[in-house]
Order: sequence, then C-alpha cells, then structure tokens
Amino acid sequence: MNIDGKAWRTIGLEEGGEAVWVIDQTLLPHRFETRSLRSLEDAAVAISTMVVRGAPLIGVTGAYGLMLALQRDPSDGALQEAFERLNATRPTAVNLRWALERVRERLLPLPEAERVAAAREEAGAIAEEDVKMCAAIGEHGLAIFRQLAAARPPERQGEPLNVLTHCNAGWLATVDWGTALAPIYKAHRSGLPIHVWVDETRPRNQGASLTAYELGQEGVPHTVIVDNAGGHLMQHGQVDAVIVGTDRTTRRGDVCNKIGTYLKALAAHDNHVPFYVGLPASTIDWSLDDGVAEIPIEARSEREVTHIQGLTGDGSLATVQLTPTGSRGFNPGFDVTPARLVTALITERGVAAATEAGLRGLYG
Amino acid sequence: MNIDGKAWRTIGLEEGGEAVWVIDQTLLPHRFETRSLRSLEDAAVAISTMVVRGAPLIGVTGAYGLMLALQRDPSDGALQEAFERLNATRPTAVNLRWALERVRERLLPLPEAERVAAAREEAGAIAEEDVKMCAAIGEHGLAIFRQLAAARPPERQGEPLNVLTHCNAGWLATVDWGTALAPIYKAHRSGLPIHVWVDETRPRNQGASLTAYELGQEGVPHTVIVDNAGGHLMQHGQVDAVIVGTDRTTRRGDVCNKIGTYLKALAAHDNHVPFYVGLPASTIDWSLDDGVAEIPIEARSEREVTHIQGLTGDGSLATVQLTPTGSRGFNPGFDVTPARLVTALITERGVAAATEAGLRGLYG
Repeated sequence: MNIDGKAWRTIGLEEGGEAVWVIDQTLLPHRFETRSLRSLEDAAVAISTMVVRGAPLIGVTGAYGLMLALQRDPSDGALQEAFERLNATRPTAVNLRWALERVRERLLPLPEAERVAAAREEAGAIAEEDVKMCAAIGEHGLAIFRQLAAARPPERQGEPLNVLTHCNAGWLATVDWGTALAPIYKAHRSGLPIHVWVDETRPRNQGASLTAYELGQEGVPHTVIVDNAGGHLMQHGQVDAVIVGTDRTTRRGDVCNKIGTYLKALAAHDNHVPFYVGLPASTIDWSLDDGVAEIPIEARSEREVTHIQGLTGDGSLATVQLTPTGSRGFNPGFDVTPARLVTALITERGVAAATEAGLRGLYG
Repeated sequence: MNIDGKAWRTIGLEEGGEAVWVIDQTLLPHRFETRSLRSLEDAAVAISTMVVRGAPLIGVTGAYGLMLALQRDPSDGALQEAFERLNATRPTAVNLRWALERVRERLLPLPEAERVAAAREEAGAIAEEDVKMCAAIGEHGLAIFRQLAAARPPERQGEPLNVLTHCNAGWLATVDWGTALAPIYKAHRSGLPIHVWVDETRPRNQGASLTAYELGQEGVPHTVIVDNAGGHLMQHGQVDAVIVGTDRTTRRGDVCNKIGTYLKALAAHDNHVPFYVGLPASTIDWSLDDGVAEIPIEARSEREVTHIQGLTGDGSLATVQLTPTGSRGFNPGFDVTPARLVTALITERGVAAATEAGLRGLYG
C-alpha cells in the first residue's frame, strides 16, 4: 500500500539478502523510519517492543529471525534456541509459532550449509503467501460490503458504508493489504463509498496511530473515536458493520484479538450490526475450542496504561504520565470474543460461519 | 474527603462570601490548585472547560453562578440572562437546570436588594443537601456491597470485593462523598475490604486522573485499566460489581452517563455481573422515557480525541498529539445505557429497580 504516494511493504530483504528492513511502527504516525534487523536478537526485540506487530507480520519477522540466527550458527542447537527465543516474544500469537515451525521443518532435514538460503526462501514464501491471502480476504470481504451497501434503505443509498474497526489489522500488521482492512482498501479502490470509524485502541493506540495513518495515506475517509464511543454510534445507526482481525481463532470460531474487541462485539450484537473477523488460516488454532477458558492472555507492562507517547508542539516525540504517581495499572493485552457474537469469519478461502462446521467447510 | 490527609470539599464560599473557590480539576492528578470564581462568566467558563465537572457539582456551581451574576445586577433580566448562560454550558446535565430553576424560583418573588443573600443561602443549601444525599447513597450502596461480599463462595470470603467504575462519580464530581464512589468510601471506612478497577475513561481520562487520585488520597486499593479491559476482567470473574454515576436518568431507568458506560453494562450483563447506578433524585428527568431516542448527546471538541495532557519527566504538564496530522476525530460525550442492563438504581432514598414503578416507589 501507499506511503506518501509510493508503494511499500512492511518488511523485506536488504541489498545482499543478509539483513532485513522493517518499518519502525513505534514511531508512527508521527515519524516514518525503517530499521535494519541483523541478528536473532534484533528480530526478537523488534517483535517484543512492537517495532513490528500484527499476527501475520510477526510470523514473517519470526521466520526471517531464524534466517538471521542461522547466519551466525546453522546448527540444530542454534536453530532450536532461536525458535524458542522468538516464540517466547509473543505467546498469544499463534501464527508466530506456525511460521517458526514451518521454517524449522523445512530446515531440519537439510545440511547446515544449505540452511540459510532455505530459511531466506521459506520466509520470503511466507511473506508472498501472506500478500496473496490478504488480497483474497479483501475480495471476499468486499463482496459482503457490496451486499451491505445494496441492502440499505433507499434513502441511504449512495452514502458511504460506515465500518468500525478496532486496533490495526491493516497492511502494517501484515506484509501488504491487511486482514480486516483489506476489504476496506478493496472497497475504496473499487469505488464503493466507504467511511471508517477508527477505535483509538488504548493502551497502545494502534488505531489512532497506525490505522488512521494507513487510511490517511491511502485517502480512505475515516474518523478517529475513543474506544468508548462505538456502542453509542451503533445505537444511533451510524455503524453498518464492524470488522476486526484476530491473533488466534479457536476451531469453534472464538476470536482472540486486541483488548476491547469483545466490548465492540457485544455492542454490535445488541444493535443488530454485523460483526466480521478477517483472518488467514494461520491464525486458526485447531487445538482450541473455548477461547475464554483456554487461551492464556498476556499481561503487558503497566506503563502502557500509565504513560502515553505523542507529538509535542515542537515536533518531537514525548511520553507523558496519565495517572497519579503511586496508582498501579493492569494491562491485559487481548480478550476473547465468543463465536456467538461473530456474524462471519472472512478468510482467504471464503466466508464461514463462526462455528467448527463453518471452518471445517473451508479447511477440511 | 481527604487530600494530603486534610478534609476538603470541592466548592465553597471565600472569606466575605462574595466569591466562590473551586478545585481546578483540569490540573489533577498532577497538580492541586483552587481557583476563584468572581463573576457569572467565571462560573460559566469553569463549567464549560471542566474546571468543575460532575452533575451534582455543576449544579452547585451553577447555583453560585447566579449569585455571582446578581452581585453585579440583581434585576429580573440579569437573572434570566444568567440562567440561560449557565444552562447552555452543559445541555446534558439535567440537574444543572434543576439547580438553576430552584434558585430562580426562590429569587423571583424577592425584592432585588434581598436576592444576593437569598441566592447565597439557596446555593449553600443545595450544597449541604448534596452532601447528605451522597452520604445516604453511600449507606444504601454499602448494604449491597455487604450482601455481595457475603454471597461469595467460601474460598473467596475475605478477599477484597472487586468493583469496577467508569469515569468519576466520586466526591470531586459532587460536593463530598460522591455518588457511585460513596458506597466504596463507606465500605473502605467501615472495614469491608474493597478493590476498585478504575476505567481510565477516555477521552478526558477522568478515571485515570480523578478517580484514581481520589481513591489514592483516601487510601482505597485500586488499579487503573484502559476502557477496553473491563469485559475481559468480567469474563474471568475478576469483577464482583460495576457501579457508575449518571448525568440524566429517565423515568423508566435509562441512564445517560459518560461515553462508554453502555459497553460496560453490556459486558456486565453478558457475564452476570451486577451493574449499579448511584444517583441523587436531581438527575431523574421524569419527562423522558426512552433515553436512547430522547436524550440529545453533546459532541465535544475533537481535540479531546486527538490530543491528551499528561505529566512530563521534568514535572510540567504537556499536551501531546496522538493521531496523524490530518485525521479527524469525533467525540460524543455521553451514551445511554438502557434500563434492561441496569441491576438497580441506588438513590438517597434507597434502592430501586430500574423501572418506572421502581422509581415511583421511592419518589411517588
């Protein structure tokens, strides 16, 4: 997608293929910078400090992280150590583990001398597949958006379709296109009028900073709202659909996504607003059924609650404290939206009911 | 209640009785300062810029605002003009209008020379009554908290009761005690172990700044969470009750409160967590039935969404920009929680079902 009118992806190989560049997402939307990853540790830190974030991009970064590790030491032991180091950076992200396992499986049978090249190729293949999957999610979602637009009463025909999204499941969370935002980009590029309500998504404000930035750079009409506002907008008919991403989806369709997603799903259900989840197959964890009971939720640093970063009047970035000195914070990173609140899952293979039968219908 | 160990109220007459002091709540929790109100305009600006906020405190400030206006001009025309200026500052706050009407009714039959003294007396009476009402709400809520604590399973006896609150309906929102927080203070002072989950309450962060400050100054255990987190906590049994305030309550028990309250009510309902509203009678608007349809919601400045104030490393207050330059924000100030999601209304006269019959039972 575009930044300043130029097409970008979120990750790629540097000249020579021995280092990886990524966009430093902790500086957005105020500053655009790329960063070089040259070692396993660089990749692990980039994931854990959220320089890169979003389940699919984390997966690709992890895959390249194995390549970076093997450049120093291509042994089985080093491969296993790198696998574990990377996998521990974000325990909730099931497709980080998926990507790491895929690369490891490819490499283990190979002689050590062939492993770096194979890791580079496999990570690149994961990235290319991700772009194709996201584009496919976009097409399937676009078909739904067209139906929703057509089904509106005559007096609302021609108005933009109002879609609410939470967090950032856009192209910055993937390699290109995004998951939840792919249908929005497809709609905008195909001329279907669309307007996006962007939840700011405390505590890290990925909505206010990343989703708003992406949409702005692509020219998609959007409005930032606080996370508290969506229910009110739905009560008043100002939301035609909600669409979000997922870090982990259980086989029955429970969705583990950024903290606060569940509240929007409840409001959508209460107001008969359809609630969609855009996801690639790699986020499905077939071993899990009841997401609320079975998915461990990471508690992130309380500093994300008590402090926030923004742009000062003189153009520098600053962090300010929001809470009284002495008050503690608690910061669960994700919540689980039960499948009963999900209207449909939009995958790269098509649209499924949020049920085991629905998912098995697409994935066998 | 206490600040730095000293008992305070939120508003009072200055020496001589011709000016009013208030706590400047826009500087909390980082700086404690009082401010003098010496004119109608001072009072109106204090309300509209949220130097004072909270329905009951706004009512008392409005009442004193009439006194300040009459000190310059005690005529019927000036009284009416002041009434309209003050009433326009916060159209959603029904008990601002109630307090203004009460003072006006008292003054209109009086000769001009007696009006200032009568306004001073009436505003003071409203303040004293507010303190008594809040204390009574506290006692009625405490009885509910005791029941909830006793009803927990044996293995959870003795653990603190976990109560979640949204925004600030504490003593800073009233003259003393608070509405939703009054039962919490009564519980803490009476030795019932209690812990409060404090929703930060974007966009103005009254929870993270004011509620956390109040609770900290009183020594009540509390933890600040982002507004997105409450649903997850409820799914995992970490919330025993939700209690919030209200700016306006319809005769059937719909509750208009800070934006985001509705989302917490939905989550409470979905997880069988009781959802209480603490309110004085002055917030009940008997002319209204369906709050979602009938209550106009003020849209506040989008700058509250796009920017935020906090404490910098050097101890000064700074405002930082959160959104990309060019992205717009939308900022509805309140939402309406339908009565069907409210377990009970806790008033100064006792506890009522959130129904017209329930409210009529207390207020006839």
